[in-house]
Amino acid sequence: MVSVTVWNEYVQEREADAVSDQYPDGIHATLAMALEKRGHEVETATLADREHGLTDSVLAETDVLVWWGHVAHDDVDNSVVDRVCDHVYRGMGFLPLHSAHVSKPFRRLMGTPCTLTYRESGDRERLWAVEPGHPIANGLPEVIELEPTEMYGEPFAVPAPEDLVFVSWFEGGEVFRSGCCYRRGAGRIFYFRPGHETYPLYHEDVVQQIIDNGVRWAASDGDRVDYREGPVEPPE
Amino acid sequence: MVSVTVWNEYVQEREADAVSDQYPDGIHATLAMALEKRGHEVETATLADREHGLTDSVLAETDVLVWWGHVAHDDVDNSVVDRVCDHVYRGMGFLPLHSAHVSKPFRRLMGTPCTLTYRESGDRERLWAVEPGHPIANGLPEVIELEPTEMYGEPFAVPAPEDLVFVSWFEGGEVFRSGCCYRRGAGRIFYFRPGHETYPLYHEDVVQQIIDNGVRWAASDGDRVDYREGPVEPPE
Amino acid sequence: MVSVTVWNEYVQEREADAVSDQYPDGIHATLAMALEKRGHEVETATLADREHGLTDSVLAETDVLVWWGHVAHDDVDNSVVDRVCDHVYRGMGFLPLHSAHVSKPFRRLMGTPCTLTYRESGDRERLWAVEPGHPIANGLPEVIELEPTEMYGEPFAVPAPEDLVFVSWFEGGEVFRSGCCYRRGAGRIFYFRPGHETYPLYHEDVVQQIIDNGVRWAASDGDRVDYREGPVEPPE
Amino acid sequence: MVSVTVWNEYVQEREADAVSDQYPDGIHATLAMALEKRGHEVETATLADREHGLTDSVLAETDVLVWWGHVAHDDVDNSVVDRVCDHVYRGMGFLPLHSAHVSKPFRRLMGTPCTLTYRESGDRERLWAVEPGHPIANGLPEVIELEPTEMYGEPFAVPAPEDLVFVSWFEGGEVFRSGCCYRRGAGRIFYFRPGHETYPLYHEDVVQQIIDNGVRWAASDGDRVDYREGPVEPPE
Repeated sequence: MVSVTVWNEYVQEREADAVSDQYPDGIHATLAMALEKRGHEVETATLADREHGLTDSVLAETDVLVWWGHVAHDDVDNSVVDRVCDHVYRGMGFLPLHSAHVSKPFRRLMGTPCTLTYRESGDRERLWAVEPGHPIANGLPEVIELEPTEMYGEPFAVPAPEDLVFVSWFEGGEVFRSGCCYRRGAGRIFYFRPGHETYPLYHEDVVQQIIDNGVRWAASDGDRVDYREGPVEPPE
Repeated sequence: MVSVTVWNEYVQEREADAVSDQYPDGIHATLAMALEKRGHEVETATLADREHGLTDSVLAETDVLVWWGHVAHDDVDNSVVDRVCDHVYRGMGFLPLHSAHVSKPFRRLMGTPCTLTYRESGDRERLWAVEPGHPIANGLPEVIELEPTEMYGEPFAVPAPEDLVFVSWFEGGEVFRSGCCYRRGAGRIFYFRPGHETYPLYHEDVVQQIIDNGVRWAASDGDRVDYREGPVEPPE
Repeated sequence: MVSVTVWNEYVQEREADAVSDQYPDGIHATLAMALEKRGHEVETATLADREHGLTDSVLAETDVLVWWGHVAHDDVDNSVVDRVCDHVYRGMGFLPLHSAHVSKPFRRLMGTPCTLTYRESGDRERLWAVEPGHPIANGLPEVIELEPTEMYGEPFAVPAPEDLVFVSWFEGGEVFRSGCCYRRGAGRIFYFRPGHETYPLYHEDVVQQIIDNGVRWAASDGDRVDYREGPVEPPE
Repeated sequence: MVSVTVWNEYVQEREADAVSDQYPDGIHATLAMALEKRGHEVETATLADREHGLTDSVLAETDVLVWWGHVAHDDVDNSVVDRVCDHVYRGMGFLPLHSAHVSKPFRRLMGTPCTLTYRESGDRERLWAVEPGHPIANGLPEVIELEPTEMYGEPFAVPAPEDLVFVSWFEGGEVFRSGCCYRRGAGRIFYFRPGHETYPLYHEDVVQQIIDNGVRWAASDGDRVDYREGPVEPPE
């Protein structure tokens, strides 16, 4: 059991029928339910909440923060980004999904633009587990077929993943590093590509299972770690 | 200018018309000419040569060893494998091509089975440079189309590449980590997937250019390094 | 709870008083007791056992294999090494300790000589957790003082660790990468340097705790993974 | 021959005798002379220059940017930091030295706090080349003794180095990952620890040689790479 906070900008679901048709209570509600069903303790938070719902006390109680953002990245307050990153350094897990590839906290943690190419053409996608022994690939088939999906293409401007778990194949001719693990300080980060606001991927069992695996992998058993800058005496 | 030795088992070219039609003087001759044309000093060696042409003095003069093998991996003498690996540890570069994924020296250096799935169906392949800033991707387009090719599929049972330069897309639905860099001791290793004994890929300019880039990347500027096991006195 | 098999060549404890004084029932007995006390299910096996006690059925039941060897590396049968490595590829964890740096299975899995320099001078050692957020550093102080120890010095001829958890400082002036993580296939490997046959480090609580952490980290939750070489049809 | 720009905040040399005694024309002047002597084309730039001397046209002509900062990190304009990082992503090399561990561009590129512990006690330091075959260790002895130095201690809050070339031993009992390589986009980054404003390390030949090696390693042979975010058509 992991204490998860699912964050959503929660904008498109309230503005566009095509989105609310798929996620009437918001993508966060769908993800929260999926993770609760798998045994986690889940809270949600959104952009419109005070401090975007991510106060220091909320983050202190969060083992893993799942992040959805798409059209409102710029509206996320920099002080909240600072706070999220600070908790990652100290040991909070972080799961940015799909279009969160250019969210502020993910770009901050990567140190790169995190840009990519895309195409909203309903491509068929095949997700290959290139590290079938990785905890995030646990219990999954060797290849997972998803359709329709938005294509994301290389080059993906991120640091080389520390663990590359999934690589996607797209019908249109592209590949993508779709499951990428990083450590930043004591925090573990899993970027997971599949997902969309109108293609209903977050309702699929296999996608939920991967996010569940990611949450378990990113959760730390240990206490928060405090890195510091400062003078020290010799060990003895 | 790099001192290159191109090694070939040189078996199928002498036994099968379909192979000798493409490579009448052997794959090694084609590769050697391509590398000479690009300014390198190239020697060749084959399985039938005494000590497979890889004596200690040959290896001592070799900056980078390019390796082709397919049907005769088991005929390579273990003492030659020992010697090749020893030179890699000390700084010689090593470029196993295509079916050399299960050659003895590559498997020894990886420490894993290096197995994969395959299909000889003339698939169209698209080779994506996922690290366009890597020296081995230098001067190349973002995506390279190759056809016909033999499909190689994941999971590829190798250690996670230290640099993953190319990922392949195959028409049939697979992906593959096709350009993988490793260091073993002081030696740099570049595994490059494309190639075949009857599909004429090694005649293509862009394939030759990647192998040239790989040779330049794998060549060390430094002296050979001698690792040792043994007792030492304190530094002062 | 992890199913652990502790393997020991069990030679010096039966031949030298200085060793049996520290480990009257063998190093394996001490390690087994330490791991049982921490909640694991532990079996032991030694060189003198039939098939060194590492039959296929024993390995199939083993989540993590802990390995001690020092003077009898060459007496380990190659077919047992094959079998151990095969189980690692399929998902068994592997913890080589101290002088197992040149054991056959570790060298096979690394693909390098794994050599180093050493000095049996009872140096004081300080083990620094350079990744304090890593699961293997869980619950440990930032620096651990050990004395007396055998110095191990760089260069350590291994592939660059995928996770470098501990770096040692030695009184005599050396450093060493003392806690190194690797993945080979589905198996996780943790090399841990501290330990010795006459310096009684395996009786120390903090050393036992690190080995416990290593065992937990190296144990897989998943089923064994079978890599394969062979032809495939397209996914559809 | 590499086009190098050496950047210095150039503050302490103008304000403190203890610093100007060592570096009368500024640390940048000493480093520039050392690199020119080794065959590079070198320009310098400082904080007081318009746009800190780092206009887009200067950076466009720079293969590798060497960076010294200590007391004035906060005075570096964020728009210049943006521009430096953008050139790194596109292929410019970057060498932050010593106290530049908390400079704005290095922290931005790492995505972490980059904090550490320190002690200005004139410790003797031993710099061990743990990867003696790495280009940056080229031509160096296995261990380099430096004295007096400022101690920097772990944990160093950076992402795990992609190549860890040097590890330091300090007389007082600490270790430090002193030579760390990273890639961010097409740019290569080498953080090198030794150095100080009053301990005269940058006058030492061996330190200059390592910086020279670092400059050569970080320089790209290729054209600048432009990553992009945007829609694409299928490859054919």
